[in-house]
Amino acid sequence: MSEVQAIRWSDQGHLELLDQRKLPSQETYLTLESPEQVAEAIRDLVVRGAPAIGITAAYGMVLAALRNRDRSDWREGMEAAERVLGAARPTAVNLAWALKELRSAWADTRELDPEALLATARQIHRDDIEANRRIGQLGATLIAPESSVLTHCNTGALATGGYGTALGVIRSAFAEGKLARVFASETRPWLQGARLTAWELLAEKIPVELVVEGAVAPLFRSGMAQWLIVGADRIVANGDVANKIGTYSAALHAHTHGAKVMVAAPASTVDLSIPDGSAIPIEHRSATEILSLGEVTTAASGSGAWNPVFDVTPAKLIDAIVTQHGIARPPYEESLPKIV
Amino acid sequence: MSEVQAIRWSDQGHLELLDQRKLPSQETYLTLESPEQVAEAIRDLVVRGAPAIGITAAYGMVLAALRNRDRSDWREGMEAAERVLGAARPTAVNLAWALKELRSAWADTRELDPEALLATARQIHRDDIEANRRIGQLGATLIAPESSVLTHCNTGALATGGYGTALGVIRSAFAEGKLARVFASETRPWLQGARLTAWELLAEKIPVELVVEGAVAPLFRSGMAQWLIVGADRIVANGDVANKIGTYSAALHAHTHGAKVMVAAPASTVDLSIPDGSAIPIEHRSATEILSLGEVTTAASGSGAWNPVFDVTPAKLIDAIVTQHGIARPPYEESLPKIV
Repeated sequence: MSEVQAIRWSDQGHLELLDQRKLPSQETYLTLESPEQVAEAIRDLVVRGAPAIGITAAYGMVLAALRNRDRSDWREGMEAAERVLGAARPTAVNLAWALKELRSAWADTRELDPEALLATARQIHRDDIEANRRIGQLGATLIAPESSVLTHCNTGALATGGYGTALGVIRSAFAEGKLARVFASETRPWLQGARLTAWELLAEKIPVELVVEGAVAPLFRSGMAQWLIVGADRIVANGDVANKIGTYSAALHAHTHGAKVMVAAPASTVDLSIPDGSAIPIEHRSATEILSLGEVTTAASGSGAWNPVFDVTPAKLIDAIVTQHGIARPPYEESLPKIV
Repeated sequence: MSEVQAIRWSDQGHLELLDQRKLPSQETYLTLESPEQVAEAIRDLVVRGAPAIGITAAYGMVLAALRNRDRSDWREGMEAAERVLGAARPTAVNLAWALKELRSAWADTRELDPEALLATARQIHRDDIEANRRIGQLGATLIAPESSVLTHCNTGALATGGYGTALGVIRSAFAEGKLARVFASETRPWLQGARLTAWELLAEKIPVELVVEGAVAPLFRSGMAQWLIVGADRIVANGDVANKIGTYSAALHAHTHGAKVMVAAPASTVDLSIPDGSAIPIEHRSATEILSLGEVTTAASGSGAWNPVFDVTPAKLIDAIVTQHGIARPPYEESLPKIV
């Protein structure tokens, strides 16, 4: 696997995260040694993308185990670590899912065994890559030859354990020679499309054309793309999908103009405990993310900003949801439980 | 009139343009002495906004007259100047309109009289400000108290002779105490909303909240705004409107979620010679506008970009078109000719 690794466990007993805030201009890894540092890295977007956040939190619990193993009150330490990691970001359900998976390695044991947690975290990481390859294959079967596609945000190796979800579908379809053009929306305010998706695609020699979000509507109206392919931060029982801000807008434009919408995500992103999208917690972040870009102030001094960083795409706009277990079609209340 | 002046004629016989590329961090004026320099300034976005481009081109013809008055072949010189100015940007019809207005001051005269051209250019400039004040008053009558509005791009004093079109409506409505909140979309790639609209509003103590284009759909879905108010670069016979990229997207979201769409523009923006939006020339600009922001590279090296800088909003999404002569409602084939 030649692709970039966003998350690396070191045998020295620490976690290394590729600092995605600095891509594509700098490729640097941060070394993390505590669950608090891991939570901060998740909150500050050193690592982002729902599956990657889950994997990172899993390794965060391994760090907690290493720090607590010699303490008599290790259980309290583990619970505190779980709380701080669980509160790092609210929208992606993979975070809570991974912490719950890790529980099996410590919640009911008499002694804390960091190796058991590490084995579980590594399994989650490996499973995610395997799931993504399968998602890529399955999703690509939906795409007709000579299609052009738009993706939003970054759902590649950087956002997952490896290979990617929506970007995995694009990788697979491209490898099969099916794709005429690949468009990526730049994804304000954090520019995941321009900085990360374009970087990953170009590293694999897949040509990419960026568009501003405002140009997505004319792109679909002109018939220049037949699919919108996106990932997800949470997929709920009726098929509503929380994903990066701008996804709902792009899905409405695709749907209005006769293009199709595919959501690609591991089964861990599906949250059947929530009936519909209105109950998904939507993270709002600081206005400064909109008012400046790195060192450059991009807005007039004194401006406010409304900065929700996710939105909910209603199920009625979505043609297919793909997990590693299969392809769900509407009505999702019936089809989703079969692919979880 | 305390507001900023984007376009100033100097009695020294030159034109001064506020360099809008550098706002809001720097407030500097460029001095222009030839129609070629004016065309370059329009092309390079020193000045932008359909009415402002028209006024600037009018003064460009005054500069042409000053340079050609002592030449026996002055008519050829004026025609050449008209061509170079007319070709500077394709989408805004105000440019061609202003050049045609100026023709009355030189095309049928025996001798070239720069003063006659200057008088015409000044009249166009004054008329635009007067028109905008009237547009502001008329547009504000449509807005109910306690409304919140979103505007896109910049349509203020910077984009016009003064006061503004859509922003003039917002100024008027705010002065009447009708506005609860004013939102501005940042308007990628050139950030006219974040850099220029926010700057103008804050200068008049009107609080403004920026949103990324991807957040416009959830903004309207949440019921946080009751109006989208935009300007126009060309309004054609059936009511289709060419305006800054992202307008069509925002209009579709407003319309889908029960908010209303107002287009505010001077009568010179209406082009009844074109039956519908499909025949409006849409300018595409360099990919570099998307791939970098000032000195900062914002995209992975090697990325391409699809960069249309205007789009067409279909008439069916527009609730009202306001010029200085009145308010047009659908069907626009019947109502538009009455307000031109």
